Amino acid sequence: MSVLIAGSTALDSIKTPKAENPRLLGGSASHAAVAASFFSPVKLVGVVGDDFPKKYLKLYRRHKIDLEGLQILPGKTFHWSGEYEVNMNNRRTLLTELGVFETFTPTLPKSYQQSSFVLLANIAPALQHHVLNQMQRPKFVVADTMDLWLNIALKDLLKLLPRLDGFVLNDSEAHQLTKEDNVFSALRKIHKLGPRYVIIKKGSHGSILSGPKGFFICPAYPLNKVVDPTGAGDSFVGGMMGCLATARGSIDQNIRRAMVYGSVVASFCCEGFGLTCTTRAKRSQIERRVKELEKLTTF
Amino acid sequence: MSVLIAGSTALDSIKTPKAENPRLLGGSASHAAVAASFFSPVKLVGVVGDDFPKKYLKLYRRHKIDLEGLQILPGKTFHWSGEYEVNMNNRRTLLTELGVFETFTPTLPKSYQQSSFVLLANIAPALQHHVLNQMQRPKFVVADTMDLWLNIALKDLLKLLPRLDGFVLNDSEAHQLTKEDNVFSALRKIHKLGPRYVIIKKGSHGSILSGPKGFFICPAYPLNKVVDPTGAGDSFVGGMMGCLATARGSIDQNIRRAMVYGSVVASFCCEGFGLTCTTRAKRSQIERRVKELEKLTTF
Repeated sequence: MSVLIAGSTALDSIKTPKAENPRLLGGSASHAAVAASFFSPVKLVGVVGDDFPKKYLKLYRRHKIDLEGLQILPGKTFHWSGEYEVNMNNRRTLLTELGVFETFTPTLPKSYQQSSFVLLANIAPALQHHVLNQMQRPKFVVADTMDLWLNIALKDLLKLLPRLDGFVLNDSEAHQLTKEDNVFSALRKIHKLGPRYVIIKKGSHGSILSGPKGFFICPAYPLNKVVDPTGAGDSFVGGMMGCLATARGSIDQNIRRAMVYGSVVASFCCEGFGLTCTTRAKRSQIERRVKELEKLTTF
Repeated sequence: MSVLIAGSTALDSIKTPKAENPRLLGGSASHAAVAASFFSPVKLVGVVGDDFPKKYLKLYRRHKIDLEGLQILPGKTFHWSGEYEVNMNNRRTLLTELGVFETFTPTLPKSYQQSSFVLLANIAPALQHHVLNQMQRPKFVVADTMDLWLNIALKDLLKLLPRLDGFVLNDSEAHQLTKEDNVFSALRKIHKLGPRYVIIKKGSHGSILSGPKGFFICPAYPLNKVVDPTGAGDSFVGGMMGCLATARGSIDQNIRRAMVYGSVVASFCCEGFGLTCTTRAKRSQIERRVKELEKLTTF
C-alpha cells in the first residue's frame, strides 16, 4: 500500500562549523517522503514556488514519489536557514521566509483520499487537520510536530491528538507538552491526550515507543560522525511509515521493526547535508545496517 | 569466583527537591559491592571511621561481603553531602569531609591478592594503582572514575589505563577526556589509551560497550520515577563484575548479559535513597527485569 505524506517542502540553507550549504532540498515532507520511498509508494502533499529547482523535482521522481499533490505556485519556495553549533546538538534559526507556504491550503487529489497510511509530517496543526479532513477512513494516521507549534498553536495540536493513531515528538517537546522530565511519565500523559502509539525521539540515544503492547526501546545506528542532523527525525518517521504501509500483519506485529528501519534511514540522513546521503542509500545498505543493529542490541 | 572491589565507603547526605536524607550508607565501593553480591562473593577494600554505624556493617554482612579488607580507623568516616535539582540530572556537592579517607592506604589481606576479578571503583587513581600493585595476576581488571580525577589527577589516571582490561566512565567524562562529542569517536580514542573494553554510561539512555567483538548498545530499565540516582553507575559496574565473576565462558561471551544485569541492579538503586532499594531487591525481581529488558529491545 502507499503512504500519503503531507508536510513542508522547502529549501534549507545549513551552516555548520565546517561548511555552508545554500538552498538544499529540505522540509519535513521531503525527508519523510524520500525515506518512505525505500519501502512503499509515496503520495506527496506540499507546496513550492516557481523558483523551486527542477533538479529537486527530478529527485522526487527518481524516488517514484507521486507529485500530483505537490502544488507549484507563483512566488518563492519556503526557505529556512539555520546554523549548528560545534557539537551538532544545538541549532538556531537564522532566517525563515515562508513564501508560498504563507497561504498554503493543501487540497488533496481524488487519488490521494483513500490512502490507508497517512503521515502528517511536521507542519502547522491547522494544516494537518485540513489534510485529515479530506481523507476517507485511513487505517493508520501518524503526526509529527515541533516546538514552534507547542508555542503558537497548542490548541490546534491538542484537538489533533485524539484524531491520531500515532504521535511522534522529540524528548524536549515531550517535556514541554507534559512538564514531565521522565520520558515514561511523559509517554503516559501523552496517551491520555489521544494517540494509542506515542514515540519519543531522543536523537543519538534512539527512540522509545509506547503502544498497546507496551514499550519498545529502539536503538540509533552508531555513527562516528554526524555531518548534518537536519531532517533525521522526519526520515525516521517517514521510513517507519513506509515500512508499515507494505508490511503484512498488524501494526503491533510490525511497528518495532518499522522503527528500526526508520532509525537506519535517519542514520544515512545524518551522514550528509540535506538529502545527499539519504537519496544515495541502497536498499541493500539499509538491510545491512538493520542486521547490524540487531547484533548490536542482542544479549 | 569472587570479585575484589576497592573504592570509597562513605556516609552520604542527600537532598532532593522532595526529601532530605542524612548519613545514608554510600560510596562507590558500597554500591558496587552490594550490587555484585547478588551474583558472586565480594571482597571489599575500603576505610571507615569509628563513627561508622554498626547497622551498615551488618548490611554488608547480610550481603555476605568479606570485610577483612575494610579498615576501621580512629576518626570520621568520609562524608559527602549533595543536592539534586528538580529533574535529577544535575547535582551539586554541598560538602566533602574526607575524614579517615585523607590518609587512606589500602593494604590488601593475603586472601584478597589472588582475586581473579578486580573492580577499582571510583576513588583516586593513585589508590587504584596501589590496590593493583598488590594483586597477583588478576584475570580481569576494570576501573571506574569521575570528573574530579580528570581535573586533578589526570596523569595518574592516564598511567592506570594501560593496566586495565576495562574502563567505565560516563558520557560527560568521556567528552572531557577525549574532547570528542561523538560517543563512538570517544570510544575509539579511549581504546588507544589502553583498555580493550570501554563502557560509556549515559544514565537513563543506557550505556555503550566497545570491545574486541564490537559495540553493544545496552538499554536502561524504564523507570517512571527516579528517587535518587546516587550510586547508580557504581551499581551498574558492580553488578556487571559480579556477573562476570560467576559466569562460565569467555568475557566476550558474557559481558553483554552482565551489563544488562548491572543495568537492572542500577534501576533498583535509583528507586530509593542510598542503598535502600538495592539492598531490598530479590534475585527473582532482578531476573524478571532482565527478561523484561529482553522483550523491550527485541524487534
